[in-house]
Amino acid sequence: MLFPLKNLGLYTDFYELSMAQGYFFSGKKNNRVVFDYFFRTNPYKSGFAIFAGLYDFLESLQNFTYSETDIEYLKNLGLKSDFLNYLKTFSFKGEIFSMTEGEIVFPNEPVLRVEGDIIECQLIESLLLNVLNFETLIATKAYRVWLASGGRVFSDFGLRRAQGFGALFASRAAVIGGASSTSNVLAGKLFNIPVSGTQAHSWIQSFDNELEAFRVYAENNPDNTILLVDTYDTIKSGIPYAVKVAKELEEKGHQLKGIRLDSGDLAYFSKKARKMLDDAGLKYVKIIASNQLNELVIQSLIQEQKAPIDVFGVGTEMVTGKPDAALDGVYKLAWIDGQPKMKVSENIEKVTLPGIKNVFRLYDHEGNFYRDAILLSNQDINEVDTICHPVYPEKSTQISGLKSEELLKVVYSDQTVQIDKNNPSEIFEYVKSRAEKLPDEHKRFVSPHIYKVGISKELLGLKNKLLGNYKNKF
Amino acid sequence: MLFPLKNLGLYTDFYELSMAQGYFFSGKKNNRVVFDYFFRTNPYKSGFAIFAGLYDFLESLQNFTYSETDIEYLKNLGLKSDFLNYLKTFSFKGEIFSMTEGEIVFPNEPVLRVEGDIIECQLIESLLLNVLNFETLIATKAYRVWLASGGRVFSDFGLRRAQGFGALFASRAAVIGGASSTSNVLAGKLFNIPVSGTQAHSWIQSFDNELEAFRVYAENNPDNTILLVDTYDTIKSGIPYAVKVAKELEEKGHQLKGIRLDSGDLAYFSKKARKMLDDAGLKYVKIIASNQLNELVIQSLIQEQKAPIDVFGVGTEMVTGKPDAALDGVYKLAWIDGQPKMKVSENIEKVTLPGIKNVFRLYDHEGNFYRDAILLSNQDINEVDTICHPVYPEKSTQISGLKSEELLKVVYSDQTVQIDKNNPSEIFEYVKSRAEKLPDEHKRFVSPHIYKVGISKELLGLKNKLLGNYKNKF
Repeated sequence: MLFPLKNLGLYTDFYELSMAQGYFFSGKKNNRVVFDYFFRTNPYKSGFAIFAGLYDFLESLQNFTYSETDIEYLKNLGLKSDFLNYLKTFSFKGEIFSMTEGEIVFPNEPVLRVEGDIIECQLIESLLLNVLNFETLIATKAYRVWLASGGRVFSDFGLRRAQGFGALFASRAAVIGGASSTSNVLAGKLFNIPVSGTQAHSWIQSFDNELEAFRVYAENNPDNTILLVDTYDTIKSGIPYAVKVAKELEEKGHQLKGIRLDSGDLAYFSKKARKMLDDAGLKYVKIIASNQLNELVIQSLIQEQKAPIDVFGVGTEMVTGKPDAALDGVYKLAWIDGQPKMKVSENIEKVTLPGIKNVFRLYDHEGNFYRDAILLSNQDINEVDTICHPVYPEKSTQISGLKSEELLKVVYSDQTVQIDKNNPSEIFEYVKSRAEKLPDEHKRFVSPHIYKVGISKELLGLKNKLLGNYKNKF
Repeated sequence: MLFPLKNLGLYTDFYELSMAQGYFFSGKKNNRVVFDYFFRTNPYKSGFAIFAGLYDFLESLQNFTYSETDIEYLKNLGLKSDFLNYLKTFSFKGEIFSMTEGEIVFPNEPVLRVEGDIIECQLIESLLLNVLNFETLIATKAYRVWLASGGRVFSDFGLRRAQGFGALFASRAAVIGGASSTSNVLAGKLFNIPVSGTQAHSWIQSFDNELEAFRVYAENNPDNTILLVDTYDTIKSGIPYAVKVAKELEEKGHQLKGIRLDSGDLAYFSKKARKMLDDAGLKYVKIIASNQLNELVIQSLIQEQKAPIDVFGVGTEMVTGKPDAALDGVYKLAWIDGQPKMKVSENIEKVTLPGIKNVFRLYDHEGNFYRDAILLSNQDINEVDTICHPVYPEKSTQISGLKSEELLKVVYSDQTVQIDKNNPSEIFEYVKSRAEKLPDEHKRFVSPHIYKVGISKELLGLKNKLLGNYKNKF
């Protein structure tokens, strides 16, 4: 098999191990550090992202250990024996503070904060980024599909085009973002997600004719049949035979659940199909559509073309986060042994925020999300009057008197996950409850209004002081 | 942990199980079938693709079985007990014929053919597509990076932005396409790939100053140090300190391996850096560049801007196959119990080729790839004079007298993988040996020349006959 069950310590970039060994031998192994996880750009030119992957990451962290063969492998890569002895009993003992899985999140704010010794915090970087970046990317995409679908049901059909075993996380994240089920049976089992699916073209082709294929399927699944009608000719054979089988089911006291369109112009064929079904007295038979769908196509089908489609099967683009394919989340050192730290960089937008920080969400007087505020951890939000833009501090906002909410909470400590394992569909309920408070202008697909994330004057002061220090040094 | 080690039988779309149960109860379970795997569109508007993922797929196939808890789960999903008893002892017993892993492949030709009973061939569909589509996508991307790099070394840095555990396959496929190493240690161990990596910004930041950070790293790794020079100011501090440390290493009989640029304009900074290093007598110090690279950026850096970069670290776009994010490979029924089958579809380009088929590569008189020919399996290539376009048969080519090579060979039979497990780097050697024979006009990035894949007149005749049959039926 292709991956180890119990030990994930090698699921890291080699430089993490190389640095960890360096810390170990240079007297830094007991340094305490704080790292922030944040992303810089909303995916899909969206106005926000849906934070996902937290539970998977935390659960994987408990298995972030090294087997004997892992140690042997690292020895062959040239790592030294004292350090390898340390790794033999390694486990992550630090603390993690995080936003809730399913939170609406924005660029450049710490979504999660890791505290611990420098080696353990360094070693888990790649695993953390790998899981959180990907699930957040997919949950955000799925939520966009949900927005476009206008309350219609959609299912994840993506396994066959997903990026290898990334498919498992993809299906989970798709449900966090609003998919009602998945075709991926293993994901269904692992994550307690409803699974769905009926038949492919090969089923139809394997019979001498389409009608027989439909009949046999319906006999075997009288209460759960969706007939795929485009194998030969949708209008001339697929739908007429589906109508015939629906009538036969009725005679036996059952109902055909739906028909599926998987090629051709979905607006055209769904309208034709709806009329043919209705004319035959089959108003209850649903129309399911699949074939290279994404949120923009679905929006056009529903809003612009009024296509009478009831259910969407969404595959490739949702589970791969096309066209972005990745979230640009990073993990940056903010503090070491009492000293705040920052990265300066050639690119101004890559300058990081120093120090141990908290994030608060501020509400307007209607109870909607208004601003997020990043403060130093020793600050009391009730004593902060003003927050300002992190790069253009002349832009500032009064926040005194606004209702606020602390977003980062302990999720991992004492080598134990400190949050409940929720089903992805329960997390989606949380997404919906939060998204209700996000004004609609942040949710539109075209040029969404930018949600503002500000920093306190104290944090700005610290940033400027450190920038000055670096300038003076060189 | 998140995935099972030994049983992959649930790594499938639910409709495969639903159809399999239908075949089981409708007297079709002993039907013999043939399925073809092929893709319809080259990724990245490329002129070809690199076939990858074969060994991983075949190895996974040996674990395509069901545990007791899997059976229990399927029972809860409503599958019936006789069928579940069948699944308890299920394993794939069919035969697989395939092109060699690393082959140069083209749209609409069978890259792989599966023969067996209808249930086993149906159940493995999703696993097959998931693995082959993804690795082929990534190997093709990596090979494009290799083409752009003009013989320079590049390494896979993609773990942190890869799509979850898809990262493992991605690293393997990247090496098949030409990456010389990976940062992903677990992929290194599992697939016997060289791993590489030195330090991140957090290493530099964790010290009081940059020079100390460089020195300590070099002391710990005197023969393997690459210094990341952009944490504070590349020109004013990063490179000057790297020069200082290089000189200190020289005094101790060592050499600094390189410096790494990870932000800013890579053309500008690499030229500045090269001059500063050369002026200090450090011509041997290599320049490594990373930061959102892809084949087009690399091509521009090298060909257009003559950037003196020696090594590239390529991450996100390579391991996610951005912007395509997926290969559109499909798995279609071609034959059942002596009867050739095809799918007609509303979209003409989705019409499939019926029957059991072989694929031959034809060489021109210079020994280069000239055409691929798809024949019925009972045809002798030496007796085929002409092949024609599968959709526009009036376009045809004489092939008599050309050297030919049969591409599909047995790779799995008797429940056993029939090919050797090669290192990904060995597969890359095969890629290179094959790509040498592909004329350059198929390799360019902009509007590559289309490589022609033709079918025999006999196959065309069969296709037309079946099309006629379907038309007559409705």
